[in-house]
Amino acid sequence: MKLLRYGEHGAEKPGLLDNAGLLRDLSGHVDDITGDVLDDATLDRLRALGPSELPIVEGEQRIGACVGNIGKFLCIGLNYSDHAAETGAAIPEHPILFFKANSAIVGAYDDVVMPRGSTHTDWEIELGVVIGKTAKYVAEAEALDHVAGYCIVNDVSERHFQNNLTGQWTKGKSCDTFGPTGPWLVTRDEVGDPQNLDMALDVNGERRQTGNTSTMIFTVAQIIAHLSTLFTLHPGDVITTGTPPGVALGMKPEPVFLKKGDVMDLTIEGLGHQRQRVDIDA
Amino acid sequence: MKLLRYGEHGAEKPGLLDNAGLLRDLSGHVDDITGDVLDDATLDRLRALGPSELPIVEGEQRIGACVGNIGKFLCIGLNYSDHAAETGAAIPEHPILFFKANSAIVGAYDDVVMPRGSTHTDWEIELGVVIGKTAKYVAEAEALDHVAGYCIVNDVSERHFQNNLTGQWTKGKSCDTFGPTGPWLVTRDEVGDPQNLDMALDVNGERRQTGNTSTMIFTVAQIIAHLSTLFTLHPGDVITTGTPPGVALGMKPEPVFLKKGDVMDLTIEGLGHQRQRVDIDA
Repeated sequence: MKLLRYGEHGAEKPGLLDNAGLLRDLSGHVDDITGDVLDDATLDRLRALGPSELPIVEGEQRIGACVGNIGKFLCIGLNYSDHAAETGAAIPEHPILFFKANSAIVGAYDDVVMPRGSTHTDWEIELGVVIGKTAKYVAEAEALDHVAGYCIVNDVSERHFQNNLTGQWTKGKSCDTFGPTGPWLVTRDEVGDPQNLDMALDVNGERRQTGNTSTMIFTVAQIIAHLSTLFTLHPGDVITTGTPPGVALGMKPEPVFLKKGDVMDLTIEGLGHQRQRVDIDA
Repeated sequence: MKLLRYGEHGAEKPGLLDNAGLLRDLSGHVDDITGDVLDDATLDRLRALGPSELPIVEGEQRIGACVGNIGKFLCIGLNYSDHAAETGAAIPEHPILFFKANSAIVGAYDDVVMPRGSTHTDWEIELGVVIGKTAKYVAEAEALDHVAGYCIVNDVSERHFQNNLTGQWTKGKSCDTFGPTGPWLVTRDEVGDPQNLDMALDVNGERRQTGNTSTMIFTVAQIIAHLSTLFTLHPGDVITTGTPPGVALGMKPEPVFLKKGDVMDLTIEGLGHQRQRVDIDA
């Protein structure tokens, strides 16, 4: 099942993409796609609806982030062995955790706006994991039962803010519009093994990142188990799980960062497509 | 004006502490103390109510965090010159930023629960700043106009999680219950100069931290101006602004961290008192 949210930013409605690719209105059944409707029972109830009986949403619609009212937007850093090599970083002993601000979250096709003075804005395609069931001290073997589904996240990053403004990556990760999330929340039954998904990111039609979630250093299950020893994961929390090689920061002989007018295209197998145009905050 | 929230965790009601120290019910006037009621016009409207006409709330009440539905819980690290000296850290060039998880937020008198395996849980009294008006690219001179008010925050920190689980402080800062916030949101008109407030923290009746906000490296206004170049600060965001000397980590000859049954008492001039008992998650 592919859940999504459509409409103006901050006033999105819940929807479902049917097998024919038609957008169907779910607002007769749930208020929004938020943590309180991501438990297995509610997802089963939505799955049991005949999509053909749901109203078709007509006209062109903005697609919002696929989850509303995200509690924690958790990010794992340096989680692909080949990306760690590219950036010259050591393989971490535990998953590296930082947060993106919730205020950075936008839809899959919204503009990415570089903040004033930004000259080092970079892309990072990542597998997003949406928590469906509360997780605290969960074992790796049960961890994936706590997942509602998966989505694409572009962990857009300002490298100067991240690395040169004294401490903690979060400064470069939390700029407004730096968290395109979606377009769909694809439920875990449809995704199957999260550790074998192809992913790719293009900038202006040129391939920059090619990867597969099989090269993650810490699997989705290991990440959930680890984080759940630190704090409770709540339904509607989103974990973005690191990026494969090919970011601007790793380009030789030197990085080519984003500039106004650039277009990023992102795909992950089974999770759809994102496209963002880059603008600047003048 | 002293705003607060009372009742069970997750179902708090809005209240006001009157000049006689009586708890008054505000739920006839606002739904909750959240970002959407922290603008100057709404605060003026609440201020204009005759407190004696508001219903008195009878009986003993749990006091919740003084702001509900906090968007971003932003933390500034190493922001007191004397605390930086105590930990042996260099004076940062810019405010150090990390996030605490929103799921860590509790009331001023709730238990602080050490996570399983924790042996290095520490205290940090801090001045919390509650944003009342959207701030983006604001100048230092106008920054305080964006503040609704102030509160006490205990930035409880697990030092092993923070420093030894590979990268980014947020792991040690985000454990459940590690963000007591309140008891009151004291509006900025009542606080006056935020850079001259005495603060103190006791553990089991022994003074551990004594400080004054005058020794901040970056002032509240400078912090808001800096953060607003990175991303938008929204009403209901909370910034906690660093801690003065006296944390366990800095104790000589060696740290004495928290243990089950310890009691922390925190005060900041004009902002009231917090008390938490320490428990462990067995």
